[in-house]
Amino acid sequence: MPTVSNKGRMMPESPIRKLVPYAEEAKRKGVKVYHLNIGQPDISTPEVALDAIRNYNEAVVAYSHSAGIPSFREKLRGYYQKHGIEITADEIIVGAGASEAILFAMNSCLDTGDEIIIPEPFYANYNGFAINAGVVVKPIPSDISSGFALPPIGEFEKAITNKTKAVLICNPNNPTGYLYSKEELEMLRDIVKKYDLYLIADEVYREFCYDGMKHHSAMHLEGIEQNVILIDSVSKRYSACGIRIGFMISRNKEVMKTALKFAQARLSPPSFGQVAAEAAIDCTTMEYFDGVLNEYLARRDTVVKFINSMDGAYCPTPKGAFYVVARLPIDNSDRFCQWLLEEYDHNGETVMLAPATGFYSTKGKGTNEVRISYVLNVGDLEKAMKCLSEALQAYPGRKDKS
Amino acid sequence: MPTVSNKGRMMPESPIRKLVPYAEEAKRKGVKVYHLNIGQPDISTPEVALDAIRNYNEAVVAYSHSAGIPSFREKLRGYYQKHGIEITADEIIVGAGASEAILFAMNSCLDTGDEIIIPEPFYANYNGFAINAGVVVKPIPSDISSGFALPPIGEFEKAITNKTKAVLICNPNNPTGYLYSKEELEMLRDIVKKYDLYLIADEVYREFCYDGMKHHSAMHLEGIEQNVILIDSVSKRYSACGIRIGFMISRNKEVMKTALKFAQARLSPPSFGQVAAEAAIDCTTMEYFDGVLNEYLARRDTVVKFINSMDGAYCPTPKGAFYVVARLPIDNSDRFCQWLLEEYDHNGETVMLAPATGFYSTKGKGTNEVRISYVLNVGDLEKAMKCLSEALQAYPGRKDKS
Repeated sequence: MPTVSNKGRMMPESPIRKLVPYAEEAKRKGVKVYHLNIGQPDISTPEVALDAIRNYNEAVVAYSHSAGIPSFREKLRGYYQKHGIEITADEIIVGAGASEAILFAMNSCLDTGDEIIIPEPFYANYNGFAINAGVVVKPIPSDISSGFALPPIGEFEKAITNKTKAVLICNPNNPTGYLYSKEELEMLRDIVKKYDLYLIADEVYREFCYDGMKHHSAMHLEGIEQNVILIDSVSKRYSACGIRIGFMISRNKEVMKTALKFAQARLSPPSFGQVAAEAAIDCTTMEYFDGVLNEYLARRDTVVKFINSMDGAYCPTPKGAFYVVARLPIDNSDRFCQWLLEEYDHNGETVMLAPATGFYSTKGKGTNEVRISYVLNVGDLEKAMKCLSEALQAYPGRKDKS
Repeated sequence: MPTVSNKGRMMPESPIRKLVPYAEEAKRKGVKVYHLNIGQPDISTPEVALDAIRNYNEAVVAYSHSAGIPSFREKLRGYYQKHGIEITADEIIVGAGASEAILFAMNSCLDTGDEIIIPEPFYANYNGFAINAGVVVKPIPSDISSGFALPPIGEFEKAITNKTKAVLICNPNNPTGYLYSKEELEMLRDIVKKYDLYLIADEVYREFCYDGMKHHSAMHLEGIEQNVILIDSVSKRYSACGIRIGFMISRNKEVMKTALKFAQARLSPPSFGQVAAEAAIDCTTMEYFDGVLNEYLARRDTVVKFINSMDGAYCPTPKGAFYVVARLPIDNSDRFCQWLLEEYDHNGETVMLAPATGFYSTKGKGTNEVRISYVLNVGDLEKAMKCLSEALQAYPGRKDKS
């Protein structure tokens, strides 16, 4: 029997999905599980997007252009223009989600063995994409005590080698919810310029900013126009994760020409998803989005308030996305999250969280942290937080900071 | 400015799509272009699939299971059972087209520098997938004079090194239309078994078999159950290329567990496409499919008859898929195909073909061959063939076999 690849062996299991069997077993036993483990919002997909699909009237569902349907990309151009980002439709390639867009970016810019610097904790699947593309992740630490701010310039310089080709950030951040300031981005620009690196900026949560904070895009940074690759997605913005539509955007023509070859090899992005996403763009200016933001704000406030009222627990107040990373008085977050599903219930209910260990690539980090996605309504979140609070009292591995 | 990756530089442009700008220019000049260059059928997508989309009634288009919607995979199990292939739903991973399924298979089974043997000419994008996965393609020759039959066992053994991890076939074949016999597949089984290789079998055209010929699946081969990976797709079968739904199927649990990690990293396959494909499976037993097959048969006969009536031209009569590779009296197929679009028209019409050079990885092969996709109705095909016949008379680079 032939063996699987080393690459395949190195691929991490999804930290978000690996607890699924335990959750399924809990449900089989009749326990209600509050899912705070996954970035799947409960918000309705905009009607205008669903209507576009319901009114689909092509006789043949054909391949689209490999870079995406031209009218869709043209409409996206207008969307970015409204956000102060001037690009042409040719500077956009539509992918099957931001996932495929990141793979296009990595494969177009980095070779096997090249290094990419990522502040950790980071979106766990970056590890998988890097292994897929043969790229080596060099994590640099951001810390809960500073709210997960961008690491200081010295940390970047320490990590840079002659193999370093790129820096990858997620802004607003998954898993921390941290929103980078203009000053932090300008510091990043200076590093990127000095060492002639690519800056891959994952901005899929760009519109989820709270407390009057403004999102600063990497595309606004002057002097590194040829270095920046923007990754974006409609999944979270329009609560349409399943349509699998994301984007790779760059003003660097050589990069886009190269990425297009990867895009051509897989023929085209999903046609139905493009039709839905094209229609969804109209929501941005409609009341749909204001309602969504207010809802998430109330949820964030609920989670932050509850966590910080729990003895021995702490989380910063993130300004973006819909996640918080919380420090809990526990021995081991993997064990705790599994225990919540396998052994615990409070009046027939429990919570599913994502252990933060999966968001660090440095071994041993995140063992007392969890990621909480606030993707449930406030009433359910309150119940889930009460349940978590009780669980922390009952957990045999409780460990208060000494 | 940072440079693009070597991998990206090595990626081939799509031989099928690289002539597109010339076609667009011809159309701008008012010339009608018959598209015989691309595997995009004109057949209608089954109504039952489109209806499923029109009746979509979920409020949130959510991520599906990373391996695909369970009910869909269960229905696929039934489909394969009807074709004598006994698998479980867990032995199927749904991908964004066969393209993604092949990448899952390559990444799960082969490491950077590992070799994969493919009889050439082969589906051009295999080159791109191999570069994407860091895998080295070792072509072995099949020839128009034998109708592109499987190369003899000696050719395989010559190509095998200690880096060889897999053999990849496409059956029925794109671009040749060749349908492998049971004997050929058994020969392949012996090689695969002897050297403990993976056999990746791309069977997306499995139901397009003509003249009463039966398709033999690699999944039927006894004794190599742990070696076989089936690649499949609904794109051609249900004329639904744009929905981007394909499959990776294997009984090898270690391979499937590994592939699932790659699938989890990109979260899920397109939800709308899965809904449409699940509904489409019902067509197989309906008159939809008989009608489709009869239509393709008439088209194949039209193309084969016309080509073989042209002075100096030849093509075999393929038993499957909807392609033929034809030998033409020309100096250079890339030049000829470009000339057809750039300089030629017959009463305001011309044809777009795919130069066969892009389907060979051995340099210099395929220079007097083109791939013709018979994806137009018989009336249009006749006009296209007449146009091609006239063009061969007028082409300045005409070169009759000496």
